[in-house]
Amino acid sequence: MKNIIIASTSTVYGGEPLDYILEELQSLFQDTKEILFIPYARPGGITHDAYTNRIASVFSKINKTVKGIHEFENASQAILQAKGIYVGGGNTFVLVSQLYKNDCIHNLKMAINEGVPYLGTSAGSNICGLTMSTTNDMPIVYPPSFKTLGFVPFNINPHYLDPIENSKHMGETRETRIKEFHHYNTHPVVGLREGSWLQVKGSEIQLKGTLKARVFEYNQDAYEIETNTFLNELT
Amino acid sequence: MKNIIIASTSTVYGGEPLDYILEELQSLFQDTKEILFIPYARPGGITHDAYTNRIASVFSKINKTVKGIHEFENASQAILQAKGIYVGGGNTFVLVSQLYKNDCIHNLKMAINEGVPYLGTSAGSNICGLTMSTTNDMPIVYPPSFKTLGFVPFNINPHYLDPIENSKHMGETRETRIKEFHHYNTHPVVGLREGSWLQVKGSEIQLKGTLKARVFEYNQDAYEIETNTFLNELT
Repeated sequence: MKNIIIASTSTVYGGEPLDYILEELQSLFQDTKEILFIPYARPGGITHDAYTNRIASVFSKINKTVKGIHEFENASQAILQAKGIYVGGGNTFVLVSQLYKNDCIHNLKMAINEGVPYLGTSAGSNICGLTMSTTNDMPIVYPPSFKTLGFVPFNINPHYLDPIENSKHMGETRETRIKEFHHYNTHPVVGLREGSWLQVKGSEIQLKGTLKARVFEYNQDAYEIETNTFLNELT
Repeated sequence: MKNIIIASTSTVYGGEPLDYILEELQSLFQDTKEILFIPYARPGGITHDAYTNRIASVFSKINKTVKGIHEFENASQAILQAKGIYVGGGNTFVLVSQLYKNDCIHNLKMAINEGVPYLGTSAGSNICGLTMSTTNDMPIVYPPSFKTLGFVPFNINPHYLDPIENSKHMGETRETRIKEFHHYNTHPVVGLREGSWLQVKGSEIQLKGTLKARVFEYNQDAYEIETNTFLNELT
């Protein structure tokens, strides 16, 4: 049975990485001491080693050890041996390109659908949707496909951002962008504000954290959902 | 000889579309009465017809008529007959997908390199660079390539946005995103603030408008350039 946390961000403003969600992670990863970390998204372009070290120091707070997938000879095989997986944030295009290049997509789907606990934050959450087409990231590399893991039957927009009042910038708001998405795609999008996450347990999908989320369905007005709402029927 | 305006945005805050640059357009398009408009980027998902009508009413102010490329049976051929071309803003992924689908890339390069006057705004400016990899847009469709027209030997970041002071949002700043780009790509990026444009005449590339622009070169600190600076040597 699927056991997944899909978090908007690793870090909330003023906080330390993952501190706002550490209790949940203790529960998510209760049956494993070691977590396989996938650092492919490389935030700010940092190396896989540096990123993995940073995450290891966070997980040491709950007595977990962390090993980076790049430390294994065969990334795809490493996934099949993992007892818990974390895919961190950074650039989604870089992440998805690397997952395809290292033939990780199929095994990730298989492992997580069979119940290996999975944590995604930011880019690592975006790939839990059907496609990466609602990422906020810059397309700095060209991935072989925008199709992602489909752990939920909709798309994720992490770091969901409400329109900035009195902004004089003429770029599109996040809502406008997601509405444009629905001119070419029909599946729903869940905009997760920073500090929110989706908890997936088997076929149950629940919004957690203290904030509302914003849901965009094809041919409907966007709407807000309260925390603890179940999204099991959203397809 | 190339004769191009690459503008950050069609509309500056509080203004009407293209009004801040209308005099320049009169000069750019002085030798033609009719402009071929490419509405493929579909801002907000509006139809090609609606977008073309909107642009026609703007150009009527300087006594130009506008015809949308979608009104021609063969888009690629229409480009070869055009005496002036405008590619408007919207979603760069949608624009580039459609340009490839309708086999427009080659003919656009040929026509503009031979001197057909070209105006690009926003997405229409982004495609003047070597690749679309520094667009700000959401990847709502999957284009066959990120390679674009290469009218200048660097990339464009339109709607360049300085970091927002006191922001509590944890998403990457524009500068961070462009720095990440340089972990995977080596060509320069010019961040054009809204109200700025590049004027390309033959081999001369000059920053115009009242604002500075921000230049990002591989393995260098980003720097500001004053208006009227020439970028002929930036490669």
